[in-house]
Amino acid sequence: MNFLEEKILQDGVIKEGNILKVDSFLNHQIDIDVMRQMAYEFKRRFHGVEVNKILTIEASGIAIATLLGHLYDVPVVFAKKSQTANSTDDKYVAQAYSFTHKKMNNVFISKPYLNATDKVLIVDDFLADGQAAHALIDLVHQAGAEVAGIGIAIEKGQQKGGSELRAEGVRLESLAIVEEMDWQTQTIKFREQPVQKIANQNLKLK
Amino acid sequence: MNFLEEKILQDGVIKEGNILKVDSFLNHQIDIDVMRQMAYEFKRRFHGVEVNKILTIEASGIAIATLLGHLYDVPVVFAKKSQTANSTDDKYVAQAYSFTHKKMNNVFISKPYLNATDKVLIVDDFLADGQAAHALIDLVHQAGAEVAGIGIAIEKGQQKGGSELRAEGVRLESLAIVEEMDWQTQTIKFREQPVQKIANQNLKLK
Repeated sequence: MNFLEEKILQDGVIKEGNILKVDSFLNHQIDIDVMRQMAYEFKRRFHGVEVNKILTIEASGIAIATLLGHLYDVPVVFAKKSQTANSTDDKYVAQAYSFTHKKMNNVFISKPYLNATDKVLIVDDFLADGQAAHALIDLVHQAGAEVAGIGIAIEKGQQKGGSELRAEGVRLESLAIVEEMDWQTQTIKFREQPVQKIANQNLKLK
Repeated sequence: MNFLEEKILQDGVIKEGNILKVDSFLNHQIDIDVMRQMAYEFKRRFHGVEVNKILTIEASGIAIATLLGHLYDVPVVFAKKSQTANSTDDKYVAQAYSFTHKKMNNVFISKPYLNATDKVLIVDDFLADGQAAHALIDLVHQAGAEVAGIGIAIEKGQQKGGSELRAEGVRLESLAIVEEMDWQTQTIKFREQPVQKIANQNLKLK
C-alpha cells in the first residue's frame, strides 16, 4: 500500500451511495504532508514527461495543482465553473455534469492562459465518470495544446472515467484506485499498483 | 514598491466599475513565483505570531493558503460556499454577500476542522467590503478559536473592509493596498507601505 491508500484507510469515511469522504485531509481540510507526498509522487510517475503548465478545475484540485506548479516551477491554471453559458470570444468553454451538485456546469478558461505550445499536466482530486477530466481535455485541445498526462489522487475504479481515458490513450496516473468499498463494514479494496521506492524522509518540498 | 505592486502595475487590468483584474497571475492563472513570494512575505510580516492553521475560502484563496500551509507546515482549511442554508449540527455556518456574484452565500466549515485551541491565520486574495473576512472570523469564533491575523494579497483601500477590520483590532496585513485606480488611464495609486528588505533570490521555497 502507498501513503495515500494508507491515509484513506486511516481517515476516509465511506458513506452510503458509494461516497468516499476524504474531507479531513484532501478536499476541505488539507493535510499538507499528504499533499506534498502526492506532488512528489506525481512528479516521479511523470518522470521524463515534458510539462510546462498545470491545469485543474476549481475548487478542490487547486491545492495539489499549486504544489505541483511549485515543484515543476511552471504556471498553474484553474478552470472555472459557471452555470451561465457565457461563451465569448475570449474563453474556451466545455460542459461537464456534476454528480455532486446534480447539474450541468460550464467549465471555462480565458484564452490567454492556454497556448498551442503548452504541454499540460491535468490534476484533480477525484476521477469517477470522467466528466471534469474530459471537459479539461476538451479545453486543452480547443487551444491546440497537448495533454501531457492526467494525475488523479483517488480514482473510483468501478466507474467509467478511468477505463475510458486509458482506452483513449491518455497517460493517466491515479495514486489510489478504489475497486470496491462497503459503507456497512467500512472496508475498501484498492487496485494493486507498484509501490514507489522513495522513503518518506526525502519527500519534503522545502 | 514591493513585488506584488510591481506585478499589478505590469499585468493587472483595470475595468470600468472599480474592477481590478489580476487573473493572469493570481486568480485564474497562477504565477507560482509571485505566489511563493507572497507566502514568504506573509510569513515575514507575521513573524513571531503563533499560527497552527491556515484558513481561506474557496476558490481563489486556496493557492496562497496551500503554499502558506507548506511554509508553516500546518493544516489548511478552506471554507465552502453554498446557496442552500443547510445549517446542521456538524457545521459552523456564517453568511457573506458576494459582490462578484451578487448573491448571499452561506459559508461553512465542518466542525472537526476548527478547534478551540487553533490559532488561525486567515488568507485571501482580495479584501474589499470585508464580507468574506468577517464570515471567516465569525466561523473561527464559533469554534472558540483565535484569529492570529489576516493576510490579504490586494486590499481595495477605498472600501470599508480594511478600515473596519483594523478598527476591530484585527491584525491585518495587505501586501498591496489600492488607494485609487482609473480605468481610462490605467493608473493605480498604492498606499505607501514599508518595503521589505528580503532580496528576491532568497524567496524560493524549494
